[in-house]
Order: sequence, then structure tokens, then C-alpha cells
Amino acid sequence: MSRTFKLTLAYDGTDFAGWQLQATDRTVQAVVEDALAPFEGRRVVVTAAGRTDAGVHAHGQVVSFALDAALSVEQLQTALNATLPRDVRVMAAEQAAPAFNARFDAKHKTYRYLIFCNDVVPPLERRQVWHVPTPLVAGAMQDAARMLIGTYDFAAFQAAGGDVVTSVREVLDSRLTVHGDTWVYEITGSGFLRHMVRNIIGTLVDIGRGRWPAEEMRAILESRHRSRAAATAPPQGLTLWRVGY
Amino acid sequence: MSRTFKLTLAYDGTDFAGWQLQATDRTVQAVVEDALAPFEGRRVVVTAAGRTDAGVHAHGQVVSFALDAALSVEQLQTALNATLPRDVRVMAAEQAAPAFNARFDAKHKTYRYLIFCNDVVPPLERRQVWHVPTPLVAGAMQDAARMLIGTYDFAAFQAAGGDVVTSVREVLDSRLTVHGDTWVYEITGSGFLRHMVRNIIGTLVDIGRGRWPAEEMRAILESRHRSRAAATAPPQGLTLWRVGY
Repeated sequence: MSRTFKLTLAYDGTDFAGWQLQATDRTVQAVVEDALAPFEGRRVVVTAAGRTDAGVHAHGQVVSFALDAALSVEQLQTALNATLPRDVRVMAAEQAAPAFNARFDAKHKTYRYLIFCNDVVPPLERRQVWHVPTPLVAGAMQDAARMLIGTYDFAAFQAAGGDVVTSVREVLDSRLTVHGDTWVYEITGSGFLRHMVRNIIGTLVDIGRGRWPAEEMRAILESRHRSRAAATAPPQGLTLWRVGY
Repeated sequence: MSRTFKLTLAYDGTDFAGWQLQATDRTVQAVVEDALAPFEGRRVVVTAAGRTDAGVHAHGQVVSFALDAALSVEQLQTALNATLPRDVRVMAAEQAAPAFNARFDAKHKTYRYLIFCNDVVPPLERRQVWHVPTPLVAGAMQDAARMLIGTYDFAAFQAAGGDVVTSVREVLDSRLTVHGDTWVYEITGSGFLRHMVRNIIGTLVDIGRGRWPAEEMRAILESRHRSRAAATAPPQGLTLWRVGY
């Protein structure tokens, strides 16, 4: 009788070509499925709440899969952490309802993005920040961040080639806080379009640099044209922080 | 006319065989001297306040050297950061008195050591913590840490093979603070013997595990025998935090 498991994963995205299985590149899905295969003697398909892009990290990615093997959740967590490479860890493991699906049952997700705003990035932080050495105006960025809270068509912040049915999403929270040289943007929403957070960050930084006033965020959102927003911010600043069910 | 420069360096020690120049291994001194050579058309000898071991990091290492090249400190910092690998950064640069020597003029140094006290280390922290999954008693470790403040013969915490004239050092501050799963030990002293901080940490952790009562720290210190103290803690938890002149 197969049981469904729910794991919370953290990973350093630096050396991964993202979550999703690919023919040749190293992906998080591949190393997790490789680590699970010996328990079942066959490949186990793992579903993730968010399919993070290459270079994007996770603090609280949630995944689900079914296993026949007779293992406790503690045994599963310990055995996986003994097998997995050190840039992926199982932070928590639990048994879930049989039909639980980490992707489709997710109610909201929180992403965090770190911007390092000074001349030189300390080397131990270089893997997880976007370095923006030009001065930024926090107030304008904070005002613009708040304009995203609500239910809108986020088409202006969607990567080209997305195949989703609708680009309407609900953003529950969107805020920028300044902690010395490290600026932290946190956004919680019902779901996210491809590159949405990184496109929002690119636009926020252009507002902070004075390219646009804060109000431009609303105009870009309402335009629903990707060409109106700024360039996509780099991946290493982004972390999938938490998934709510 | 040659001028003396003082740089503050930060580095991720993970991929270095320590500070000091070696025949074949990659060291911080080698990459910094390589980056300086083009300015002078010859090798420039760089002196560091603390010769950190393999795997040990720096937040505020200080180095000194003399240059003939006509460069401003800003030009020097910018040019070095453009040349140096990304795991070493020049955080600050200034011109110093002609006789300034980063090693011999250092009045005190502060080291920080991070212990991660829970079951699973988040992957983005793995390069800079010692993972101690067994429960530790903070109070006993904090008491023992305070016993090191003062001027003592620290021979019990010195690596074998040290060639120093005296093993007497003054410790100005020694404290452990708990920040959730991350425990931070900070020690400031007039100088440090080889492996001294890592041997102190090994002993503190054995006290925290209950192998010894806190009082044993004083007995080990007074014994002046390396064999009385615990095993050396691993290097990746250690960071040379600050040097005072």
C-alpha cells in the first residue's frame, strides 16, 4: 500500500540548472529522484510546489511523492540526507493525505530576494545576492512594492513563452525592508508566473535608481505588456522561502 | 618613492589552502600577490595580520605591502577587485605610515566561530558552520568561555609544532551567544597561538555535551598540556573577524 510523503527541502541553487528534470544538466529534481530510487527499486516521480529556475535557491520548497517502502518519516529524512549531495537537504518530512500534491494543493508561496547595495559584496554572501552598487532610493521602491498587493493581471511581469491559462494572480504581501547593505524584498502570492519575481525586482531597482517614479509600477502593471517592465533580475538573489497549504 | 598600503580583505576560505604562500596549493596570499604584481612589474610581498589556516574565512583580515606605482587608494581597490577571484574581496583600502606592518602592529584580533546546533544544516550555511547535531548546554559553555578572559599561558590550546617564544596571551573577551540554531563564539585577544580558537571550541563543545563540567576549562588551561584539551574543531566555522591597531 503506497503512502504519500511531503518533504520540505532547502537547497543552494548555485550548481543546479533549476528544479525540473533535464536531459543532461544537474537539477534538484534529478538528485532527489536519484536518492529515492533505491527505496523502491525504480524511479519515483517527485512533484515540487515551485519549479525554481537555474541558480534560484530554496529555504522551504515542498515536494510530494508516493512510496511503497515501509519506512518511518524519520528514517526517510535521515536516509535521504545521508545520500543527497550537501547542497540539498531535507529539512522536514511528514506523511501526507494520499491525494496530497505539493504543486496543486499549494495555497500561497513566499519568495525572498536579496539585493546587496554597496560597493563590494562580502565573498560569503556572493552566492545569494544581486549586487547593485549604484545608490537606490528605498522609499520609492517600498511605495512601488506595495502597489502590487491585490488581484491583478501580472502579464507585464511574465516571461515570454509562458503557457499558462491566465496571468491573473493574487499578491497577498509585497514589501521591501532595508537591513544595512542588504535589502530584502519579500512577496507572498497565490501563485507566480515564470520570472515574475525577478521581473518585479528588475522594475523595483530601476525605480530605486530613479529611472522611473514609484507610480510607474502601477502603469506597468496596468499595461500588461512585458516590454514596459525592466530587465529580469539575476537568479542568485532569489529564494523560494515558504509554501502554505 | 614607495608607499605603504593597508587593505582590509574578506574571503571565503572554502577553496583556499589558507593564507600563506605554498608551492602548489591555491592560497589567499598567492592570489593577492598575483593581483598586485602587474602594478609593479614584479612580485609584491604581502604581510597579513593573521595567517589563517585552510578553510578558515576572513571578514576583516588586514594586509600591508609597499608599492611604487602611482595609484590612488580608490584605484587600487577597484583594480584589485576587478582582478581578484570572487572569493576574495578588498573591502577597504588606505595608505598607511611607511613602517606599518599588518602583522607586527596588530594590537588585538577578533575571531568568530559558528556552531550549527540542530539536525540539518541549511545548504546555504554549510560553508561557514560546524554542524553539531547533539544537544549542547549553552550555560556551561558560556561559563567556560568567560574563564578564558585574562592573561594566561594558553599552551593547552596550542597545536603541536608551534615555534613561538611564549604561549602566554591576553584574552580581552570570550563569549558565546545563542541565535536560534546558530551559536556564535567570539574571542578577542592580543594574539593567538596556532589552532588556539579551534582547540578552545572543541573543548567548549565537549563541555556543552556534558563530557566535562564548565570548571574543567580552567583545569585544562592551568595544565598547559595540549593532551588535556579536546580535539580541534573543524576550520570552516572560523572567521577572522576584525584586527585592531
